[in-house]
Amino acid sequence: MAENSSEPTRIMVAVNESTMKGYPHASISCRGAFDWTLNKIIRSNTSGFKLLFLHVQVPDEDGFDDMDSIYASPEDFKKIKNREKARGHHLLEYFVNKCHEIGVSCEAWVKRGDPKEIICHEVKRTQPDFLVVGSRGLGPFQRVFVGTVSEFCTKHAECPVIAIKRSAAQTPRDPVDD
Amino acid sequence: MAENSSEPTRIMVAVNESTMKGYPHASISCRGAFDWTLNKIIRSNTSGFKLLFLHVQVPDEDGFDDMDSIYASPEDFKKIKNREKARGHHLLEYFVNKCHEIGVSCEAWVKRGDPKEIICHEVKRTQPDFLVVGSRGLGPFQRVFVGTVSEFCTKHAECPVIAIKRSAAQTPRDPVDD
Repeated sequence: MAENSSEPTRIMVAVNESTMKGYPHASISCRGAFDWTLNKIIRSNTSGFKLLFLHVQVPDEDGFDDMDSIYASPEDFKKIKNREKARGHHLLEYFVNKCHEIGVSCEAWVKRGDPKEIICHEVKRTQPDFLVVGSRGLGPFQRVFVGTVSEFCTKHAECPVIAIKRSAAQTPRDPVDD
Repeated sequence: MAENSSEPTRIMVAVNESTMKGYPHASISCRGAFDWTLNKIIRSNTSGFKLLFLHVQVPDEDGFDDMDSIYASPEDFKKIKNREKARGHHLLEYFVNKCHEIGVSCEAWVKRGDPKEIICHEVKRTQPDFLVVGSRGLGPFQRVFVGTVSEFCTKHAECPVIAIKRSAAQTPRDPVDD
């Protein structure tokens, strides 16, 4: 294996919003996956790695979040789009700021669609060395109903995948929350 | 996360013999997994990691390897055991020597039994930070017949698991070989 040692190892980290509370902040499991990557892989070798943060926004099909909205003009739709964009940027800001503090180079971007499909598509496009995904570590019974992005990516992504399970101590009252 | 940065990240690497040729040498996929770990994870940070090599020997249930043997005394059985031991040691020697050359600390040991069960058991016992397993990257059709250790471990091991697929260029004529 001829390896150019000056090229950093490129790690894609899939990040998402917490399902709890109102304002967008990173989910428990993706923060866990990020911390794990810093502590166990990157360690002190900050110049040896580059992190690629991908956030996939799920289109709000039910329109639940906008139930009380009245759409009177194209402007209103633009506002919604801008609000969603702002949420995505806010989420990525958390990770990019952390990397900046530590001195790890990174890139971050937002896509919209089905997370598992988009993640695999972006892996194909950007060809990271591997993908880190957080996982709620649900039991088989819970998994039937919620499906898991990590399982799908482990099977279908065109790069090695490591799923980092939430610790028991970090599990919220309802384990389906994150 | 309070992290003692002086503690190296402990990576278990499951290694096995090639199914091809006569004399024991490491399989294509486990050598690939090892090289990947060195190039993409450890890189120049040799003091930040410790490798734990586990080789699981599968008991020869058919006795195929020993078909021409005649067992006349307890000594003969001892000889077989010693021969198997020697094969295991020879395999581990390859990895330990490489680590020694590079300056990465390591441990290596042999167990006997069903690889997938033993790997999960040893993960539980030694609690590595994560497990690296090589994978032949078989298609669904081939997988039905051979089963895959990597899939089992990904589901059942009590630590994060990363499966490294053999590259297409390294695939032998019969992809079930390794």
